[in-house]
Amino acid sequence: MSERTEIGEIGEFGLIGRISEMAHLANKTTIKGIGDDAAVIDNGDDYLIFSTDALVENVHFDLGYVPLRHLGYKAMAVNFSDMAAMNGQPKQVVVALGLSNRFSVEAVEELYEGMRLACEKYGVDLVGGDTTTSRSGLFISVTVLGKVAKDKVAFRKGAAEKELLCVTGDLGAAFMGLQVLEREKQVFQANPEMQPDLEGKDYIIQRQLKPEPRLDVIQELARLGVTPTSMIDISDGLASEILHLCKASGLGARIYEEKLPIDRTTYEVAREFNLDPITIQLNGGEDYELLFTMPQSDYDKLRNHPDISVIGYMEAPGTQAMMVTKQGNEVPLQAQGWKHF
Amino acid sequence: MSERTEIGEIGEFGLIGRISEMAHLANKTTIKGIGDDAAVIDNGDDYLIFSTDALVENVHFDLGYVPLRHLGYKAMAVNFSDMAAMNGQPKQVVVALGLSNRFSVEAVEELYEGMRLACEKYGVDLVGGDTTTSRSGLFISVTVLGKVAKDKVAFRKGAAEKELLCVTGDLGAAFMGLQVLEREKQVFQANPEMQPDLEGKDYIIQRQLKPEPRLDVIQELARLGVTPTSMIDISDGLASEILHLCKASGLGARIYEEKLPIDRTTYEVAREFNLDPITIQLNGGEDYELLFTMPQSDYDKLRNHPDISVIGYMEAPGTQAMMVTKQGNEVPLQAQGWKHF
Repeated sequence: MSERTEIGEIGEFGLIGRISEMAHLANKTTIKGIGDDAAVIDNGDDYLIFSTDALVENVHFDLGYVPLRHLGYKAMAVNFSDMAAMNGQPKQVVVALGLSNRFSVEAVEELYEGMRLACEKYGVDLVGGDTTTSRSGLFISVTVLGKVAKDKVAFRKGAAEKELLCVTGDLGAAFMGLQVLEREKQVFQANPEMQPDLEGKDYIIQRQLKPEPRLDVIQELARLGVTPTSMIDISDGLASEILHLCKASGLGARIYEEKLPIDRTTYEVAREFNLDPITIQLNGGEDYELLFTMPQSDYDKLRNHPDISVIGYMEAPGTQAMMVTKQGNEVPLQAQGWKHF
Repeated sequence: MSERTEIGEIGEFGLIGRISEMAHLANKTTIKGIGDDAAVIDNGDDYLIFSTDALVENVHFDLGYVPLRHLGYKAMAVNFSDMAAMNGQPKQVVVALGLSNRFSVEAVEELYEGMRLACEKYGVDLVGGDTTTSRSGLFISVTVLGKVAKDKVAFRKGAAEKELLCVTGDLGAAFMGLQVLEREKQVFQANPEMQPDLEGKDYIIQRQLKPEPRLDVIQELARLGVTPTSMIDISDGLASEILHLCKASGLGARIYEEKLPIDRTTYEVAREFNLDPITIQLNGGEDYELLFTMPQSDYDKLRNHPDISVIGYMEAPGTQAMMVTKQGNEVPLQAQGWKHF
């Protein structure tokens, strides 16, 4: 080929854009193809939702400090989170595994034990897989199949101007957990007799190693009678996900720094690392919380909810996504997120 | 961990066995989990079928002689073949891709162009994916979702004693195609000015590089009014697949060497390589033909069919799977297949 464009030049989202232009949809049951948290397939009474996510060694995880059981759990959790992002429930899952010969049968069983725990907790069946050799590291490719009622499905698009932007849980903890684990790994490499200093950091380490999909929030929203008008899960960082919702709905947004939820440990460890907590909240990634919009008329249903924060609202078409700082300045949101390429 | 069992000791099938013992099924819609060509999920009027298969560089393919477009096509074809093996049709597919930075955007587009061609040919929608970095080679993990009528589904189990064993197409061609490609690669590496000598070998090379799922046979069987009582696709070699059917149905089998279909090119190239053609037919692998059983009463429907061969029949429980040679000797079938570990 005469032309050579590096993937880094167009980025992962650019590559997905090119691929989705090539995808040709023939089945009229396909409601939504590439470009949301999951594909949506008409199934008569309800929709099927269908999504895949791969974890690759030394790209997404480091076996130097990630226990295999946690890794198996996380591989499931990040996929279940895509089902939550459609306002649906995961039902069945298949796993393709690439293993090098440094993995023993017992190690593979540890990995599957973590998968089994996540499946059991969330009522999902592990129904199939493929196990192959990999010449180098481990990869885990998970595909999940779920369901959502037709009148409840939430896409990335669908938000309207002035609707409220809401986020679940707190932000930035998983990223700070990763920083702590990386630091302790380096300390250990320098001096293998040092014990890791993880005291008081359980919460952020747990958020990194064993994230939970917010399927509890999906049930809670149903109970409260709130159907998100648009939704996405926060895997690449809040800023990046807000920009996705804005682009999909053709709107701008305005969020308030003071409204962004953060756990005290995340805040303190960020300061310890000389990092600005707001940067971590906006761009940390791997939170697997949910970001969604809802009409203002639903505000009373969620007001004072301990696990859901209203962080701003959607703005008119043609405006940017902005954050109002605690000082009252307005700064445009930028997607930093995870760039693996 | 104190215990360490090498995966090679128990093999891929042993590993799958251990994993499937761990899998806990909670949803009553899950009809069949791990252990068939696809999982089967009750979907009201019909069954969903759901399967995953990964291709890994330097394990399943060598980019030294596999064009990316063919590779994309093959990644789809082997997955569609799993749907055929359930007597069903593929409908939607998702792809997780691990790419190292030696791949350009144009290379990825070539790969997707092959996927698109296969999807278009077989009426399947590419509805989603995940694209990540890989630290080393390329991997392609494909998951396919399909449908099958409840009264048509074919499992690996279900065969009865005295039923006929049938195979589609011919056997061993893909394996001989691979031998030719490997030989020409070595010739080229020894002397880069040598042109590859592939003349007259188009058929076997095509069978290796661009296999077709036998979805045409599925339609043909429906037209003829034949519903297989058990079925599997031939990915690891005929002998291995016969043993799978025997084990699943708790039966033995008897096949006849003289009945096994072979293409003339496969036969001639096998002799050229000093290989016994029957070994290639039994253990070659990657044929992606279908092996199925049917009642003797259906024999007239398939008699003289140009693309389906009756190769033997199922034997009583407790007997072995045997082949009767052209000389009239009986030899037990052994699974050699592909052992990547």
